[in-house]
Amino acid sequence: MRDIRIAIDGFGAIGREIASLLLARHDHYASTYGVDVHLVAICEAEMGLSVEGGLRTDQLGQLASGKSGADFLLSSRPDLFIAAGSGDMGADQSGSGYLRSALAAGCDAIVVSTGALIDDGCRLRELARTTGAQLKISGAIGAALPTIDMLQHNLAGCKAVRIEGIFSPCANYILDAMMNCGATLSEALGEAEKEGLADCRSRSDIDGSGTARKLVLLANFGLDSPLSIDSLTVQGVEAITEQAIAAWRSQAMVPRLVGTLVLEAGSVRGTVAVRPYFPGDPMALVRGRCTATRIVTEEMGEIVVTNCAAEPRATAAAVLKDLEHILRIRSGRFQW
Amino acid sequence: MRDIRIAIDGFGAIGREIASLLLARHDHYASTYGVDVHLVAICEAEMGLSVEGGLRTDQLGQLASGKSGADFLLSSRPDLFIAAGSGDMGADQSGSGYLRSALAAGCDAIVVSTGALIDDGCRLRELARTTGAQLKISGAIGAALPTIDMLQHNLAGCKAVRIEGIFSPCANYILDAMMNCGATLSEALGEAEKEGLADCRSRSDIDGSGTARKLVLLANFGLDSPLSIDSLTVQGVEAITEQAIAAWRSQAMVPRLVGTLVLEAGSVRGTVAVRPYFPGDPMALVRGRCTATRIVTEEMGEIVVTNCAAEPRATAAAVLKDLEHILRIRSGRFQW
Repeated sequence: MRDIRIAIDGFGAIGREIASLLLARHDHYASTYGVDVHLVAICEAEMGLSVEGGLRTDQLGQLASGKSGADFLLSSRPDLFIAAGSGDMGADQSGSGYLRSALAAGCDAIVVSTGALIDDGCRLRELARTTGAQLKISGAIGAALPTIDMLQHNLAGCKAVRIEGIFSPCANYILDAMMNCGATLSEALGEAEKEGLADCRSRSDIDGSGTARKLVLLANFGLDSPLSIDSLTVQGVEAITEQAIAAWRSQAMVPRLVGTLVLEAGSVRGTVAVRPYFPGDPMALVRGRCTATRIVTEEMGEIVVTNCAAEPRATAAAVLKDLEHILRIRSGRFQW
Repeated sequence: MRDIRIAIDGFGAIGREIASLLLARHDHYASTYGVDVHLVAICEAEMGLSVEGGLRTDQLGQLASGKSGADFLLSSRPDLFIAAGSGDMGADQSGSGYLRSALAAGCDAIVVSTGALIDDGCRLRELARTTGAQLKISGAIGAALPTIDMLQHNLAGCKAVRIEGIFSPCANYILDAMMNCGATLSEALGEAEKEGLADCRSRSDIDGSGTARKLVLLANFGLDSPLSIDSLTVQGVEAITEQAIAAWRSQAMVPRLVGTLVLEAGSVRGTVAVRPYFPGDPMALVRGRCTATRIVTEEMGEIVVTNCAAEPRATAAAVLKDLEHILRIRSGRFQW
């Protein structure tokens, strides 16, 4: 049975969940793909653990200090590595360089953190193509909400003409609080933080930049377009006026923070803005922790997907979905 | 460049659309997968055409009589054949036998017609596994609405616990006419037929059997469950009483004809019935020509997909999506 050695960078809530799920599915990978999956190394900013023959579940709490960084992880000779750290190998900003070394060596990679991908996504993708490495990023866009998957798999062969995405539960919450409870932006934000909406801890979902980053990755990886973040028009929920709220309320419209890609004449244009939807539009039903995407194609009409899931389990499952796709390719087992 | 020889059985609206799209994408297949795709034979019940080096678009109207049937198509030595005929090789009921011969010879198959699959799906699937042939059936369930795709690809590794599907535009139309316009079942059915809703031409969408067939295929092919059609509890829109309509109207509920699969303790249970949804449920928004599925999983929460598309283009595009997945496997090109 072929060995597949996996290393995980990042051992916060998502990294831990990935590790647990991965170990629990060992026998599934063996019986389905004929591979013996070993988790050979894990690390976070300061600590880590590597075990030549693969970690067991009861070792996941035994990280030791000083074992971290790119050299530490690569010395475990992974076939595949999972970048689930918030900063991609910490404050030295070596995320992109690390990913680059791994892909250059033909090591497959699954990336959750958007950092390195935003700056360097197209080049990393090109590098993966050159060496034949697989580079998967479901966890960085939508996670359990299929986005790149939809474009590459479910709509294979079709021409997408427009894509909309509601990616920020924080913005959903804030807009609903402003519309339905008359809350101000800061009141709504305070409530969202109390509710534990993780993305509200950063400004990126207030100013729209979090959605903008997801649009760029969707264009770079899902549409093979070199769209850069500087080319986007971005307006977040912070730009919403009381007048706008009052007008939408009187028209019974439902505002949502939406990232939109429009494909026209061979180019892709991206915008992030709060847009009102009719109440009969499935995008208007996307509330709370839910996310959604609408893809309009020439051949298959319009597809809308919504997802409501609990984190960190859903993102971990999205990462392991990517793993499963890679295992199919590496094992050549495509029979179901 | 490797040749891929394709034969199509069925040359009605869907078969013609498949042939046109396939020929139009010849260069795309060559550049993306390095394969030279030839349409070597097409036939319908009485007529057909085969061209050793592959048909051109201007030859699609030149079918000659007497060229039909399994022997005719197989004599064109296809690598892949597409079963898009309503009866799978006509009234001799040889559909299953034909599919069986092709799969036994290792020929890949894409099937739109449900006939042979319902009677013989699990055995055909087992045969394909044995010979290494790919057997794809997106066009038989949901078409442009991803269903099997969702289970096998987007939710890879996850455990589905419940699946709902709204597969009948005819039933959507009838239920809306009864709810919103006070129409009787026969009035609503007459209107739907006038509107050209194709599935209303048969009784299968009134009595729920069309949805039941799709559930069986979804269980057999998407869940690897041997669910048989006899085990389903099936009630169609014809069972709806005026009292039920009045009650749903007074509660502001939206009834839909829904196929449901419940996965429990290793077994799969299937029912087809008209069920009321709250207006804030995305399934309640599925109207007219639209279809939808909801999949509840342990790891990724709940995913709802809706599709609104124009036929026969959408079903043809779904068949060619299946083709694209097969070409990836046959060419080994999985880089995007």
